[in-house]
Formats: sequence, structure tokens, C-alpha cells
Amino acid sequence: MSNQFASGSFTRGVHTLTVPSKLYAINRERLVERLRKIANVTPNSIVLLQGGESTTRYCSDHEPLFRQESFFHWAFGVEEPDFFGAIHVLNGESYLFAPRLPPSYAVWMGELKTTDFFTSRYGVDHIFYTDEIAKVFNDLKPEVLLTLKGVNSDSGKTSREAVFEGIGKFVVDNSLLYPEIAECRVFKTPEELRVLRYTNQLSSNAHIEVMKKIRIGMKEYQLESIFQHYCYYNSGSRHVSYTCICGSGSNGAILHYGHAGAPNDKTVNDGDMCLFDMGCEYNCYASDITCSFPANGKFTENQKKIYNAVYKSSRAVMTSVKPGVSWVDMHLLADRTHLEELKKHGLLIGDVEEMMKQRLGAIFMPHGLGHFMGIDTHDVGGYLPHCPPRPQEEGLRSLRTARILEEGMVLTIEPGIYFIDALLDKALNDPNLAKFLVNEEIAKFRGFGGVRIEDDIVITESGMELLTNVPRTVEEIEALMAEGKSLEVDFPQQKLLK
Amino acid sequence: MSNQFASGSFTRGVHTLTVPSKLYAINRERLVERLRKIANVTPNSIVLLQGGESTTRYCSDHEPLFRQESFFHWAFGVEEPDFFGAIHVLNGESYLFAPRLPPSYAVWMGELKTTDFFTSRYGVDHIFYTDEIAKVFNDLKPEVLLTLKGVNSDSGKTSREAVFEGIGKFVVDNSLLYPEIAECRVFKTPEELRVLRYTNQLSSNAHIEVMKKIRIGMKEYQLESIFQHYCYYNSGSRHVSYTCICGSGSNGAILHYGHAGAPNDKTVNDGDMCLFDMGCEYNCYASDITCSFPANGKFTENQKKIYNAVYKSSRAVMTSVKPGVSWVDMHLLADRTHLEELKKHGLLIGDVEEMMKQRLGAIFMPHGLGHFMGIDTHDVGGYLPHCPPRPQEEGLRSLRTARILEEGMVLTIEPGIYFIDALLDKALNDPNLAKFLVNEEIAKFRGFGGVRIEDDIVITESGMELLTNVPRTVEEIEALMAEGKSLEVDFPQQKLLK
Repeated sequence: MSNQFASGSFTRGVHTLTVPSKLYAINRERLVERLRKIANVTPNSIVLLQGGESTTRYCSDHEPLFRQESFFHWAFGVEEPDFFGAIHVLNGESYLFAPRLPPSYAVWMGELKTTDFFTSRYGVDHIFYTDEIAKVFNDLKPEVLLTLKGVNSDSGKTSREAVFEGIGKFVVDNSLLYPEIAECRVFKTPEELRVLRYTNQLSSNAHIEVMKKIRIGMKEYQLESIFQHYCYYNSGSRHVSYTCICGSGSNGAILHYGHAGAPNDKTVNDGDMCLFDMGCEYNCYASDITCSFPANGKFTENQKKIYNAVYKSSRAVMTSVKPGVSWVDMHLLADRTHLEELKKHGLLIGDVEEMMKQRLGAIFMPHGLGHFMGIDTHDVGGYLPHCPPRPQEEGLRSLRTARILEEGMVLTIEPGIYFIDALLDKALNDPNLAKFLVNEEIAKFRGFGGVRIEDDIVITESGMELLTNVPRTVEEIEALMAEGKSLEVDFPQQKLLK
Repeated sequence: MSNQFASGSFTRGVHTLTVPSKLYAINRERLVERLRKIANVTPNSIVLLQGGESTTRYCSDHEPLFRQESFFHWAFGVEEPDFFGAIHVLNGESYLFAPRLPPSYAVWMGELKTTDFFTSRYGVDHIFYTDEIAKVFNDLKPEVLLTLKGVNSDSGKTSREAVFEGIGKFVVDNSLLYPEIAECRVFKTPEELRVLRYTNQLSSNAHIEVMKKIRIGMKEYQLESIFQHYCYYNSGSRHVSYTCICGSGSNGAILHYGHAGAPNDKTVNDGDMCLFDMGCEYNCYASDITCSFPANGKFTENQKKIYNAVYKSSRAVMTSVKPGVSWVDMHLLADRTHLEELKKHGLLIGDVEEMMKQRLGAIFMPHGLGHFMGIDTHDVGGYLPHCPPRPQEEGLRSLRTARILEEGMVLTIEPGIYFIDALLDKALNDPNLAKFLVNEEIAKFRGFGGVRIEDDIVITESGMELLTNVPRTVEEIEALMAEGKSLEVDFPQQKLLK
């Protein structure tokens, strides 16, 4: 009797997507259906999740903007901190436990929402306060509480299992739940895909805005600012899915550029290749898109060579993905395409099969071809117990999953070619690799940075659906950027630079 | 022999402020001078601070954008996570300990910076890796290590003291340092004031941009987005000092509106009063400014009454602050001004002195008049052991300090009048307060929201310097907003709303 068709929803206005709370009811239903099929889960079990907590920055009272913990969001879609949630495996009934807020909350933080409000907003069957958890469970008498404990294969960190005062009186199993809920998260429902299509269209539009407004002499972070403003102003996307990577010139070869130690603060120069990896988040669902383009709007011959090599591998992968295909094979396909193209352009010499055996591709693409994406940018489920283990070869070991593709998986396809001094020098010192490298040709690309073409896709019954919608061919990019040049774009250092 | 005049600096481009690392050398020098005067600090002591650490969001690998811990920033100005820093009390020599990063850092995160780079960038005397701390201290043989442990009087949280492998071999004192360094932070140097003037001018300009571009029918968050974009795009201010508070209409009466549970998502309506409290951060120095104005650009008579009452108290306080004045008295001055004005406009009746005794002012201004501001928005040092204790009376107990003003203190002056149903109803049920309230007049202001006028100031030898620079009189605001109406401003829901 779970309250699937509650009227509650998330929205940021008439011009934005409305996400009904039914999305989470379906997720919960999928989870309990899965749990019921597992022999060692008794139906009289209760799944218990603890939501993200409010925090402060170190010992100060500065409160970072709250963003819900991802498993909790997947199951309940709650926007506020300090909730707990539970799902009864037997009947699928859902429970939310809201923090009991003091009357002063109304003065400082806003209206004290009633339990009725939460029931209707989040479409759950039962609502209580967090200080009532033990009492509620005492009445329900579950045989076991299923809490969430598992290792995230990207971070190596362990999820924090729910705890509440009085939990000691209950039987708790913290091992069963994690692989099951993670496996559920791997497969996106039509309701989730609707949100992911939206975030992708929004981020695509924002990338287009950036490509139109980029001007030589700008700082990289000014493009980051344009991107973020576009997403928030136009659609209420308050968070980005990850820190914007706005690498121009050689910074394009730093895979996770843009963090506090390398804060997108280089000036964009004429002749630079740009590699901008940026994605917005809406209702805690991610997008993850990279556009690579020449800062001045016109590809040089060398830029075109590398760009088209990556474009070719991107589209080769897109043509090949479908249920039953191994993701590792897709990575190898991208590698092979890169090596063939680099050979064609005279940067490499020798037998491509031999290069593949020596894993030469990892020198140019040290990261994995792509990863699951959903509520987290690097979404969970890549290396669950029943999945193929992490490969050990160069490049392949960076893959965030080695799974066989199945319908409903959402992934990024993000091949790239980078000229990374540290890796090129390493290869030149390794006789197994050095023999393939045409050093004097490669030398011309030192400082080039890199090209990455990153799209988000969903595996369909017979192939894939492309969620991302940005100009991708050399011609499309040049046409868009030419159009952009007619826009009047001011930036403050413009006059100082003249 | 501390390296005060190192060439290193923080900047975000030729159009932005350059902050020399000398700022931190001076801070360190001030601290050791202070420590040397304390009887129970032996000169052979070493101050040891641990910088902020890199983190991930829950168990995922999502890395929130790093922002340095504030005490560490004050002493060293280091932009990157995972550093330690030390200062020898005897000779003032400074030490930084950088994390030893793996070679793969060059591929994923960027160039591996050399120790020479850090010495010059941060202007310290000695640089080592964090795994060398024990060894370095073994050689220096300090009698005692001074670590930072103290309670932040705004959050109630305790600072986390530095720990490193091998600390057990040293004598550690964790109680002496906190009050001394916090006291240093209360008084801003000329170098720090230069940064605070900059953040204030930048935030002022951004508020002006918002007032010019606001349109009826926009969402509050769209104004937040305009503000943030202005600060980042124009000056590389990547962080806001605190989550933007963009309250329109009745939301103006929610003091900390804007957080995830009340996310600036109301539509701005014709007739709304707006209360926008927003400040950018540059180089970890804050600004904290509130502008209150009518959404449609023209004050109604009632809006004017409340606005001018607050403006009057704001300027009364500004005229009165100077060294030797009690901050509590300033709060009371603002209260008194509010009560007099509300009485004049017929919302209150009776003797203002009597109202003051009953703390009626706290019904209309439940928060404190203002707070220290610096590297934290609510800066430390409000209630150190040698300071007057927190008052217990209504309203006054919300003050973040009760200190006597001294030259070099930076504070916000932020009087406000709010119509908060919860407090008005409480007052109407309290015979000691109800007798002053003209309910039928106050009823007209239910749902009005509130007015806050918040400026940042520094106490000078004879009075104060105003750092904030925004239109403040009714006439100035109306003129600015009239000018803004000539700008073409699109927002996506515009067409849908028509």
C-alpha cells in the first residue's frame, strides 16, 4: 500500500522540470522487490537509511550549502538535512523521520514544516520525528534492520551506516543492503532518465553559451562562472556535479584540473586548445560533459588531427555499445582508434596490435573510457561482488567498471588524447614503448594539452541513446563559435590587456 | 629573521587585487610578539597549526571545492589542502609542511610543485614535507608545542588540534594558543583591511547589479545567481562568504533564509520588499552586506516607514561607534531608535523606556546588531576569557560579542526590523509586551517580511570607516532601480508568465 502517487514534487519554477516524488517510490519498490528475492533476507526486515547531516566548516559556524547523501536521495528525495528513512521489506511501506526542530527555527531558518507537509511533499506512508525511531521500530518488531555499509569503489571509502539511540535493542545486518541498493542504482528508471535528459540538455546549452562567449584574454574561471550562472539562472541548478575543469593550453592535459590547487586561473591565449569538463546537477541528478575546442574558434591543422582522432573513437564506441558488450572492450576500441589515428598522423610508428599489447594507449589516455553516472557523477556499482573485477593493465585499471553493458545503464563515453610530459617521458624511457614513438613529431605537441569528448548516454535495448546535445564536429564547433563572435561580451581585464 | 618580504602573492589576474604573502608574515609576527609577552609561554615553544584537509562528500569520491581552515589561512595563506605550519616563538621563523604527493598527481591534479615554489609563493623560512614534521621538531628540540584547541563562541564547536605521527614524544600545550591567536584575529592589520575594502567594493557592485536587474516574476535564486556570477566573473571570487539570503516578501523575516530547506525559490512579486544578504569572499576574506529594497523599485509608504526607521538606527550607530564604546550599548541604541520610530508610526504605544526595560526591541530585531568579520563571516574573538560575557537578555543574548570597541576591529552594523508571526504572537500573549503593541496597525505589516541594512565597518582612532558602498537612502535606491529598468534583462520564465 505504498503511497506511490503522492502529489509532492521537486521543482524550481514553471520554466524548470518538475520531478514527482513517485520517482523515489518506484526506487523503493524496486529495492524491496529485489530484497524479497534474496534467500537470507527475511520479509520482516526494515531497511534503515540515515540522510546527510548539517555540518559547519571546521569549528566555525559557516554552514556549507547542504546536498543530500546520494543513497538517501535515491530512496527518498529529501532536500533537508538530518532525516532518517525506512522501508519495510514485507509491505514496502515507507517511513520518514524528520528532525524535531526548536521553535526558534521559525525565526532563523523558516516555517516549521508539519509532518503532514512532509508526508505529502515526499509521498511516504508514515512520518515521525527522529527521536521516535526506536519507538516506531519497537512497535513494528522487525526481525532485522538492514543498514548500509559498503565500500565505494571509486573513493575507497566506506558508507556510514545509520545509527540512532536505542539501536542496540535491534538485530542489525549491515552487509546485505549495500550491494543490492548499489545494483538498483546502476539501472535508471524512465523517471530518472527524464531528469538526466534534462540535466544533459541544460549543461549542453551552458557549454554552448561558453563556446559563444569565450574571448582571448579571459581567465579560465570566467568561463566557469558563465557556465554556472547559465545553469542556475536558467534552471535553478544550484550545484554543479563536480568542480568545473576549465583547462586551456597545457592545462587540458591535467585530468582533474580546476581544484583549489589549480583553480582555473590561467589566461586563455590565442592558439590554446580548450578542454572544458563541466556539468550541472538538478534535483541531485548529475550531468558530465566535456567540450574541447580552439579558444579562438578556428582549429589549426594539428588541433584538427587530434580532435578528429578522439571524435572518431567517441563515435566508434557509440556505434558499438549495446547490451552484452564489455565496457573493457569499448575502452580498448577507443585506444585502438587513437593509436591508429596517431600512427596515421606520424606521431607513432609500428604495429598497432603490438602497441595494444604494450598498452601504449594508456600513455595518451591514462583514464578510463567512462563511468556510470546518476546521482553521483561517478555513480556506484562499478565493482560489486558479482561483477568482473578491476583489470590490472595500464589504463584499464583506471576504469570505474569492467561490466558487461545492460539496458538502463547510464554511462559517460569520454575518450581523450593528452600530451602529458610525465607520461611521454616515462614512455620514452621504456624500450617497450619508446620504439613506437616518433619523438620529433610528438615534440610538436608538447604543451598542446589535450582533447576529450565526453557525452552521457543510456544503454537501450538495441544500442544507446545520446543524452548530450552539443556541437561535436569541427565544422559545427567552428560555426557556433563564429556565431558567438557577433555577441558583445565584456570582461573586466579587457581594457587593461589592450 | 622571518622572511617578511617574500615576493609571493595571491591574485586572480591583472584586474583583481594582489595580496602579498607579507600579510601572513605580519600576522605571524604579531602572534609571536604576543606570545613572548605571556609569562607561561617559554620562548623555546613552537606554534603548530594543521591546515584544512581534502574531503569527499560522504563515501563518494565527489570532492567539494576546498576552502582553507580560517586560523591556518590567517597564519599562512596556503591555498591547498593537507598542509601543516609552524612558527618558532623564539625567532619567529616559519615552517610549512606540504603533503608529499605521488607522481600520479602530475597526471590527475597538475604539476608537482617543488618545495622552492612553496617557499617563494608563501614567503616562509623553511619548507618540508608533512612526513618530516617529527624529524624537524626532533632537531629543533622545542620545550613545548602549542596547538590550537578552543571553543568557537558562535558554533559551540571545538577547533581540532594538530596531530602528526610521533607527536607523543613532544610536550604539547593545547590551551595557551587559542585565546591569543583569536585575539590577534580580532584586530585587522592595514594589509587585511586592504583585502576587506576590496571584498566590500566587489560585493557592493554586485548588489547594485542585482538591484538593477531584478524583475517582477523572477525567482529569488536568479538574483543569487546574478550576484555570484558578478563576483566570480569580475574578480575571481570563487566562494561566497555564506549562503546567499535572497528573501522577498515574507521571506525577508526569515533571518537565515536561503539554505537547502528554504532555497531562495519563491517568485518575486510586485509589492514585495526584498531583503538580500549576500557577500563574496576573496582570498578567504569575507564581506557581509544586506540591501533591502522594493522589488518593483518604488517604496510604498509603509515600506518607507520601516526602511527609514532602520536607516535611522543604522546611521545613529555609525555616528556613535568609536574606541571605548560598548557594542551592547550600540545594540540598545538601535533598539531604541526602532521603538521610537515604530511608536511614531503608530505601531507601538507607551513609554519607550518601559519598552526598553521589557526588551520589546527583540521582538522586531531578534538578532544581534552585528558581529566581527574577517576570514570568517562571524569572525572569532567575541567572547574570549578576558571579554565581557554574553548578555542574557532577549535580543542581547544573540550578540556575537559584548566587547568594548577598539581601533582595528571590523564589524557589521546590521540593524533590522522584521515582522515575524511567531514572535509577534508570542508578544501579544505576554501582558508585559502586549500592552505596547497596536495590534490593528501591526496586523497591516504581517507578511511584510523585514528590512535589514547591513554594512561592514572598521573602527578607527576617532570613529569608523565605512567599507560598504551601496545606495542607502530611499531616493538613492529608487534612482538606481529606475536606471536599472532601462537594461534589457531576459529570464527564462518571462514568456511563460505573460
